Amino acid sequence: MSGAKPVEGGLVYNIDDEPPVGLGLALGLQHYLTMFGSTVAIPLIMAKPLGIEDDPAQLAALIGTMFFVSGISTLLQSTWGNRLPIIQGGTFSFLTPAIAVCGMAGASGAGFEVRMQAVQGAIILGSLVEIVIGYSGIVGRLTKFVGPITIAPTIALIGLSLYPFGAPEAGRHWPIGGLTIALIVLFSQVLRTRHRVFELFPVLLGMGGAWIVAGICTATGVFEPGHPAYTSLDKLEAAPWIRVPMPFQWGMPTFSLAATVGIVAGYIASMVESIGDYYACARMAGAPVPTSKTISKGIGMEGIGCLIAGIFGTGNGTTSYSENIGAIGLTRVGSRRVVQYGAGIMLVLGAVAKFGALFTTIPQPIVGGMYCALFGMIAAVGMSNLQFVDLNSARNLFIIGFSFFMGLSMPVYVKAHPVAFDPQWLADVVNTLGSTGMAVGAFIAVILDNIIPGTDEERGLTHWQTGDEAAPPPVDPHHETHHVG
Amino acid sequence: MSGAKPVEGGLVYNIDDEPPVGLGLALGLQHYLTMFGSTVAIPLIMAKPLGIEDDPAQLAALIGTMFFVSGISTLLQSTWGNRLPIIQGGTFSFLTPAIAVCGMAGASGAGFEVRMQAVQGAIILGSLVEIVIGYSGIVGRLTKFVGPITIAPTIALIGLSLYPFGAPEAGRHWPIGGLTIALIVLFSQVLRTRHRVFELFPVLLGMGGAWIVAGICTATGVFEPGHPAYTSLDKLEAAPWIRVPMPFQWGMPTFSLAATVGIVAGYIASMVESIGDYYACARMAGAPVPTSKTISKGIGMEGIGCLIAGIFGTGNGTTSYSENIGAIGLTRVGSRRVVQYGAGIMLVLGAVAKFGALFTTIPQPIVGGMYCALFGMIAAVGMSNLQFVDLNSARNLFIIGFSFFMGLSMPVYVKAHPVAFDPQWLADVVNTLGSTGMAVGAFIAVILDNIIPGTDEERGLTHWQTGDEAAPPPVDPHHETHHVG
Repeated sequence: MSGAKPVEGGLVYNIDDEPPVGLGLALGLQHYLTMFGSTVAIPLIMAKPLGIEDDPAQLAALIGTMFFVSGISTLLQSTWGNRLPIIQGGTFSFLTPAIAVCGMAGASGAGFEVRMQAVQGAIILGSLVEIVIGYSGIVGRLTKFVGPITIAPTIALIGLSLYPFGAPEAGRHWPIGGLTIALIVLFSQVLRTRHRVFELFPVLLGMGGAWIVAGICTATGVFEPGHPAYTSLDKLEAAPWIRVPMPFQWGMPTFSLAATVGIVAGYIASMVESIGDYYACARMAGAPVPTSKTISKGIGMEGIGCLIAGIFGTGNGTTSYSENIGAIGLTRVGSRRVVQYGAGIMLVLGAVAKFGALFTTIPQPIVGGMYCALFGMIAAVGMSNLQFVDLNSARNLFIIGFSFFMGLSMPVYVKAHPVAFDPQWLADVVNTLGSTGMAVGAFIAVILDNIIPGTDEERGLTHWQTGDEAAPPPVDPHHETHHVG
Repeated sequence: MSGAKPVEGGLVYNIDDEPPVGLGLALGLQHYLTMFGSTVAIPLIMAKPLGIEDDPAQLAALIGTMFFVSGISTLLQSTWGNRLPIIQGGTFSFLTPAIAVCGMAGASGAGFEVRMQAVQGAIILGSLVEIVIGYSGIVGRLTKFVGPITIAPTIALIGLSLYPFGAPEAGRHWPIGGLTIALIVLFSQVLRTRHRVFELFPVLLGMGGAWIVAGICTATGVFEPGHPAYTSLDKLEAAPWIRVPMPFQWGMPTFSLAATVGIVAGYIASMVESIGDYYACARMAGAPVPTSKTISKGIGMEGIGCLIAGIFGTGNGTTSYSENIGAIGLTRVGSRRVVQYGAGIMLVLGAVAKFGALFTTIPQPIVGGMYCALFGMIAAVGMSNLQFVDLNSARNLFIIGFSFFMGLSMPVYVKAHPVAFDPQWLADVVNTLGSTGMAVGAFIAVILDNIIPGTDEERGLTHWQTGDEAAPPPVDPHHETHHVG
């Protein structure tokens, strides 16, 4: 078996390649659009606990802040952090504890600012924990226990665990959701050898094509207001042109230990997920398998990103974005510079309120269709690590299968039966991790892979951790264009 | 990459090997216990729609009939059908349409026998469809479109789709459910080189060990009646010693087209799942990759099994049992003779009402613990087919990942939003298939793998379909005992 080759005969642009500015900006915009759904979803979900569900101006400001901070964090991570082409943005793992903070005594009776300040304080204090865990190298030293048998279910479950958000979202209107999927498949799999534009922008073109159809159907009255694929630019008029997010824009954060320990559970889940993302991203981008040092620097920088998120007040932290790793797999553009262009777009568009509002008009079935294509790609990238593992070993099969199965099964249990014991913060940690599929899968796989006897060869460690084999072969960035007719 | 080797250096007993009678009976009993949970679950679920939830005598008779028919079908399948060591038993895919038949006008107002006769009629007519599809060879000819990219998600989703039944069942009482899992892991993975008994009976020993602990806790009053792990032999006294199930024991079946077309959806799902099972079972048992002819004979015989189930009146059909394929993977005993011993035990114990009643006293957390270990193993066996596939191909990754993701995501959608249109039978078919994860995954994978351009090498067809490579190496059945200290 061979080493970690990048996907299918090399990337169009490697991690250190720099595409022309115009092309790079367009590719960066695609990353922006890819992260758009989750990034907008988080403020929308937090609107109610924060008490701004009926305040579109505050909500628009919160959305802008999310993008602005994501841009800063992505620039920091790709330039001084782990230097992988990995988008940073808000994380679902913070939602449950952040909502709990909003509901705590002292915040629940007060208005938006008081609640937000309590969330900010918890996120700021929690970020110090992540910064220490990262830069002290603790997290990196733990990676010597991590092989492909652990990484495969961990990455795969990032994608698979999102199953409640794929078909159900696309299925709000199957003609449009299905069209999005079909166009992404058509562009990324069938037409990509015909013209480079299909190869580079399958997600953008797929979503754009479906959006145009939805727009035509809306304009001709086929989709009426309230239709799940209705798309209207009305929200645009309500938004101001420019609003630059500022530190402490909602007032000074308030600090409490109880709020902080709850949010640390979110941090733990976020760190485990990010480490999985680093492996996936490196594999997709044709970079070497992340070293202990790379992981430490990445996690440390994610802590700094969370600190910044707490200072600006996104009501959330930052983590690595799996969706964008899927986009790298589909486009085979792994350039760090493209991600930095994407970060620049986030910064600018985070301040241009009208532009952000424009994209909130993308109908949900189109976002759901994109989820179906990208979350599946993440699952497959995880499974591709199995090529280093002996898949005829009953030991390996048991560990892999049990991790996958429990990663899907345990969250069903924990969500229905959250544990309750003292200290409450420990119960929160258990509930947050137990309802996070990839944390469950990672935990089971790393324990069993290290206690059940097995040879390094059998476990896939020999073929996997050798930096030489993992380095990508040289790629001619223009090679793929030879197919153009 | 190598051909389809059996798991880890060969099986203890190969498909054609015949262990000594005593050992074979004990191994057969383990298969019986492995299939026990699902086989008992089906009559328990059907009790309410059939109107016998408050009639333990009829319910016990129905459970006995399930086992009796499973024994007949397993003997037929392993002897004259596909000749694989594959247990036949009731199928969850028939539940939804069978419940619908019970609720149809004419049956819903009447008693148990009338409802059962309507279900029997539908199953008998439907079985003719499966028999024709099987023995005509239609199903076998379709397999030329099936490669490892289709089989991997199909088999894996059989296990993964059962995620609602793993941790939630084991978690009815984690100390006992977790103990069951821990013992199965301990025996099958850690202690198996120490003594052969651990290698051969990990499931039986794991469940038995946990059951003994539950019995001690019940006897000492730690578990009181109503406790999820409470175990008592009270049910035994109520059951008669012998009750031999007979054809048409509930009266003559009644036939209706409406009932039959609904149940055909269950047949389609069952056939797709069974084909996946054949590949998994052959791979586990060290048999060659199933040929078109093997599959045709297997499906035809499953139709005959369903015909018998309809004649005896199990309220269900028969299909291949994934759990037992997992047991073959754990025990590495792939002997057909062992499965035939298991079938004999089903026949005998299906007639001994007291014995069947004994096993209904196994606490549910122990059954759930077994699910966690076995369903994961099925998932891993599916994924092991990926070793033949180029996992650095973006094409392959997209197809595999999208199939896995939609296989988990689509059932969530379809269960929440079943389609409704005329003709109703077609809507039933769509709903049944759409809520069956492995049917969704198989459908997507087989379509995309055949329409998206890819070489045979890339798709894994070259290494996979060659019977020579797939044949197992000769195995010394006593080899493994050399480890015994």
